[in-house]
Amino acid sequence: MPALSANKIKFIRSLSQKKFRDEHGLFIAEGEKIVAEALASGYKVKEVHHENEIGRECMERISCLASPSPVLAVIEKPLLTPDNLLEGLPGNISGRNPLFLALDGVKDPGNLGTIIRIADWFGVDAIFASHGTVEVWNPKVVQATMGAIFRKQVIYTDLADVCRKFTAAGLPVYGTFLDGKNLYENLPQGDKCGLVVMGSESSGISPALSELITNKLLIPPYPADAVTSESLNVAIATAIICAEFRR
Amino acid sequence: MPALSANKIKFIRSLSQKKFRDEHGLFIAEGEKIVAEALASGYKVKEVHHENEIGRECMERISCLASPSPVLAVIEKPLLTPDNLLEGLPGNISGRNPLFLALDGVKDPGNLGTIIRIADWFGVDAIFASHGTVEVWNPKVVQATMGAIFRKQVIYTDLADVCRKFTAAGLPVYGTFLDGKNLYENLPQGDKCGLVVMGSESSGISPALSELITNKLLIPPYPADAVTSESLNVAIATAIICAEFRR
Repeated sequence: MPALSANKIKFIRSLSQKKFRDEHGLFIAEGEKIVAEALASGYKVKEVHHENEIGRECMERISCLASPSPVLAVIEKPLLTPDNLLEGLPGNISGRNPLFLALDGVKDPGNLGTIIRIADWFGVDAIFASHGTVEVWNPKVVQATMGAIFRKQVIYTDLADVCRKFTAAGLPVYGTFLDGKNLYENLPQGDKCGLVVMGSESSGISPALSELITNKLLIPPYPADAVTSESLNVAIATAIICAEFRR
Repeated sequence: MPALSANKIKFIRSLSQKKFRDEHGLFIAEGEKIVAEALASGYKVKEVHHENEIGRECMERISCLASPSPVLAVIEKPLLTPDNLLEGLPGNISGRNPLFLALDGVKDPGNLGTIIRIADWFGVDAIFASHGTVEVWNPKVVQATMGAIFRKQVIYTDLADVCRKFTAAGLPVYGTFLDGKNLYENLPQGDKCGLVVMGSESSGISPALSELITNKLLIPPYPADAVTSESLNVAIATAIICAEFRR
């Protein structure tokens, strides 16, 4: 069985680190479903390794997973030019009910990946992320997207700029706060659009960005006066809000 | 600094395994918020170890976390008698709009923990779980609940029995299916109650249980004909459904 060379193994393993993903412009994706989605997408898949070809032991050495899947792909990061993507936003979005997310310091890779999967399901038009948000090509993020990463872009940029652009275009900027207003009573009755800012796991939306939120929302617990967990997980809150926008 | 004895360290470490949790009737919880919730709850906290007392190195040895928190507690598992809890259910629930979850083979500890946190937020009356569902005292489950585990019980039992009890009591049994009916158009307009069955990450609701679902639901993607991820994560779907029940 033609195993991979030591150098090749070292190279693939190095892509688990952001430094080397940046240097080579590559990232890895693991699992049959995700690799199949990569191959079907417009992404340039450079290498696919299957355990039937390289052997289980070799797969365990290149995998980032505790339980390696049978297949791993090395993929080129797409060339994103955030400035071009931001140019003209939100005005150049012609779809109905444009909905955007802005992630302010989401640190957990699983949360970011899950949010991308949610954004894909609910047809979110674009995801903006602060520079303090975990990198989208982190293997754990890729994994948690279950393939949605090949359909939804994450644009790392200054979120204050983004908020100001939406406000200037006359579009609402939403965010969740414990002293916000009931989600179910404070969205427009008909077409719903705008930017939804989601905060970090530990500290929520940063004070500087909070000032730029035009509509502060609360996902009400049940019953309203219940003694519950202090908050919902950021991906869970994102899902409930997106579902309500798309309802 | 009085570090822990080698035997004590070995004992606490052993509680990361189900076998030893079962044997000793104990589990561990880590993190300041979760340990504070444990102490404020009715649970019997046997030991609390803080890195200021035992030293960082010692904490790293007893912790289950990649980045240990400053505090770890050893806690007695509550004595649950599923039969008693099930006795008379759902009829003995006197609250308004009783809502129950049934988890059919949820394997990922993070998902189970997140679902418990959601159940706490939305005032779910009880969580049933199949015997194939991950154990609730797994440290990763405890962690993901962020403390909600001390307020919400998970009852491991035969879910087919549970479904039949609800049906016999004239209450609906819901589940999500890709060929289900639009969630937003198929719940009662007024008071909403019942049992919601959520399936496993890999294969959804098992065929045997599917037959006992009286109301098959779909969380619609947006737009309705969108090419999206094949599904939502089970915790995400649970959140959207609970939010809709409690809306």
